[in-house]
Amino acid sequence: MPAYDPNNLFAKILRGELPSYKVFEDDKALAFLDIMPRAPGHVLVLPKAPARNILDVAPDDLAHVIKVAQRIAKVSVDLFGADGVTLQQFSESAGGQVVFHLHVHVIPRKEGIALKPPASVKEAPEVLKEQAAKLAAALG
Amino acid sequence: MPAYDPNNLFAKILRGELPSYKVFEDDKALAFLDIMPRAPGHVLVLPKAPARNILDVAPDDLAHVIKVAQRIAKVSVDLFGADGVTLQQFSESAGGQVVFHLHVHVIPRKEGIALKPPASVKEAPEVLKEQAAKLAAALG
Repeated sequence: MPAYDPNNLFAKILRGELPSYKVFEDDKALAFLDIMPRAPGHVLVLPKAPARNILDVAPDDLAHVIKVAQRIAKVSVDLFGADGVTLQQFSESAGGQVVFHLHVHVIPRKEGIALKPPASVKEAPEVLKEQAAKLAAALG
Repeated sequence: MPAYDPNNLFAKILRGELPSYKVFEDDKALAFLDIMPRAPGHVLVLPKAPARNILDVAPDDLAHVIKVAQRIAKVSVDLFGADGVTLQQFSESAGGQVVFHLHVHVIPRKEGIALKPPASVKEAPEVLKEQAAKLAAALG
């Protein structure tokens, strides 16, 4: 496995060099909206510590990330009127990974509505801003 | 969300009422092969405590499950000559869930090979038996 690249997109977001629609942050994790959501309310949860993916992340950091993902999943179901939730975590290109800082996808789901293909449609900034504010308020 | 059904398929496996191709077990988690794998080495990791899905599982049980999933992911990459790993966790029918005891899918991936559709092809028992033995030995 290649080494962690500190210039990946999410490392830049973690350092504040790029903006994000933040929904949650604590000392060990950051969560923000996917700007090309596969369903409304699609959130990414990251450990703050550098980790390429599941193959190198510290187990306790991964455990913390999944607990944050659970909190977001529970809140999302209510906020987005969802009937279920899909979690995904991709490691390496073959596993579906595109940005090489570990992240867990939390995607609220409605009955009978398929996921949009990955990275297919960019959501409007005003929609993302409003969704992030609602999520942040519910998680705060 | 409906209550936990103690007669779901995985509860029966956990109680030993149905067989499984076990790859790992400790006091809080059980892992076995999916008999209709989406790729060779497709494993399911479950908490032993009753939990329908991400919406009701105890956070510490979920954290333990994801740590076990990580161990399996790392071992699987070597054992199955994989180039990556895909993790999935489905909650409620709308989220993709079919058996209503929380489980995390750990799927070794090879470059350029798409996942088979869910529950599409039953693997041969002798293949599953051999794969389970290899995984159990590596995880033991």
